Amino acid sequence: MTRSREIQLAARPTGLPGPETFRLAERELPPPSQGEVLVQIRWLSLDPYMRGRMHEGKSYVEPFRLNEALDGGVIAEVIESADPGFAPGDLALAHGPWGEYAVLKAAGLQKLPRGSRVPPQAFLSVLGMPGMTAWTGLNRIAAAKAGETIVVSSAAGAVGSLAAQLAREKGLRVIGVAGSPEKCAQAVADFGCDACLDHRGKEVKQLSKEIAEAAPHGVDIYFENVGGTTLQAVLPRMNNFGRIALCGAIAWYNDPSAAPPASHVWLPIIQKRLRVEGFIVSDHVAFRGDFLSEVVPLVEAGKILWHETVAEGLDAAPEAFVGLLEGRSRGKQLVRIR
Amino acid sequence: MTRSREIQLAARPTGLPGPETFRLAERELPPPSQGEVLVQIRWLSLDPYMRGRMHEGKSYVEPFRLNEALDGGVIAEVIESADPGFAPGDLALAHGPWGEYAVLKAAGLQKLPRGSRVPPQAFLSVLGMPGMTAWTGLNRIAAAKAGETIVVSSAAGAVGSLAAQLAREKGLRVIGVAGSPEKCAQAVADFGCDACLDHRGKEVKQLSKEIAEAAPHGVDIYFENVGGTTLQAVLPRMNNFGRIALCGAIAWYNDPSAAPPASHVWLPIIQKRLRVEGFIVSDHVAFRGDFLSEVVPLVEAGKILWHETVAEGLDAAPEAFVGLLEGRSRGKQLVRIR
Repeated sequence: MTRSREIQLAARPTGLPGPETFRLAERELPPPSQGEVLVQIRWLSLDPYMRGRMHEGKSYVEPFRLNEALDGGVIAEVIESADPGFAPGDLALAHGPWGEYAVLKAAGLQKLPRGSRVPPQAFLSVLGMPGMTAWTGLNRIAAAKAGETIVVSSAAGAVGSLAAQLAREKGLRVIGVAGSPEKCAQAVADFGCDACLDHRGKEVKQLSKEIAEAAPHGVDIYFENVGGTTLQAVLPRMNNFGRIALCGAIAWYNDPSAAPPASHVWLPIIQKRLRVEGFIVSDHVAFRGDFLSEVVPLVEAGKILWHETVAEGLDAAPEAFVGLLEGRSRGKQLVRIR
Repeated sequence: MTRSREIQLAARPTGLPGPETFRLAERELPPPSQGEVLVQIRWLSLDPYMRGRMHEGKSYVEPFRLNEALDGGVIAEVIESADPGFAPGDLALAHGPWGEYAVLKAAGLQKLPRGSRVPPQAFLSVLGMPGMTAWTGLNRIAAAKAGETIVVSSAAGAVGSLAAQLAREKGLRVIGVAGSPEKCAQAVADFGCDACLDHRGKEVKQLSKEIAEAAPHGVDIYFENVGGTTLQAVLPRMNNFGRIALCGAIAWYNDPSAAPPASHVWLPIIQKRLRVEGFIVSDHVAFRGDFLSEVVPLVEAGKILWHETVAEGLDAAPEAFVGLLEGRSRGKQLVRIR
């Protein structure tokens, strides 16, 4: 038997999650059955979409269950294997609990290459879900072409910073939007943005004016992660036949009623003949090979930068998750378990 | 000199247009110059999109100008021609004023076939803009396939009734939504709907429940003409990877602030990976030949029905336009000038 501590969902939050949302618990794990492995969780990925899973209603992923461990992307080290494909010491990308140990089906694990030059947690960020999300939105949803102008929201965030750099590599003009002067400076210095606008404390009109100045030929693509003021400011700047790759709307996850009237986003779609397409990276796993073959060389050549915010230890996960929702993290939010 | 009466835009309305919005005026027309024709307007087309043109702001079509004649699709008879391609007596589809006579550039006229079995005003409805809009939304935007389920809003309206019938001809299950028991009965009896739901006076929840019952396998395509309650009721019923052909949002034209929070329409696009695409039929004129070659035979074979509401005389146009916005017209709203 292995004892493992884990973070459970104690209550479904309204608004921002608080201490009452989470519970630290301990449980005993059985040994792995045939086809399973016992793993030690090394890294947890914290992602904005997890806020949606805290609601009871059915969404595109299963809601978290009350009084069970939260779960998500993890980097796991195999401790004990009952599957011929894995041996102790193997590192793998997996879906696992916010916990210290887990018994997982081996079939769900993607083994990391041994002796790779990139650190294992990169497979939770630039080469994992955020990177694949950026690549999918840019290529498969928005069909980005050299010479076009793209606005990337959360341009210093885990997905946005990669979308911006991949767009730059493709030859687009890249306008970032981010939530502080520091993030904006970083988006320009590190993440390939030709300009980056700070949306904090700005009226829609002012932000929209700044976008117009930064995008003199209008906006062909909006990589949408936030909703809120940024969406409202971008819409009037969209060119006819523009595309919106709709990846998230973090501004509205905690308080959907804070949004402007739906007509403000619906009517411009007609007027400008926009194509707005929602996407979820897990639908596009069949293209993971294409993604890796394009992005791994860029990473190895040092052409793609990414940042990590690392919370130390399982106990720090709830606070780190709230910080992520509040925009306090920088780049990819990770938790190092040990 | 020809004297012509016309309806001008006297004031830009807020909310529903009223008597103060319109002015009947008279003017003198010059004889046609080289390449022009003098026409007598026979039929005016009144369309919901014209409400948007009453705003000052730039939209996808030029706003109407204050103190000038309103304009739109017309069937015109050539009275005097200064162009070798037209002779007196020719009937043509044209863009012209809400007026009795006009001098138009011959290049902008599409001559109607002489001796056709279909009445000339059909080229303002089933074989004109509404028909082409229905066909474009169904085929070029939503990529409708046999076996899918479509919800068509304004199912007894000029565009909706044709979208429903073209969908039925393609082998889709067709659920109409309309604004009275009479319109619903007609949508089922005449316009190919397998079921039609009356949205008037219903809460979103109730309408959504009825859609679920009428569409047991969910909704693959929503042909969107209305916004409002119908949009909110359809969204929870959309299947993953569904498409919304966004043609209009009449419920929000007069009062955009009456809409629910934007998050209500934005978040489902992500959750269900919808593709929402706005379109305007005039962008697709290159496909008019494809449209006519598919739909003219259906019309000649009596497989497509359409209704007209005819207002008699130029003076009746303003009242008819308000009736159209209020949902009082049945099928295509026309004005017969003489």
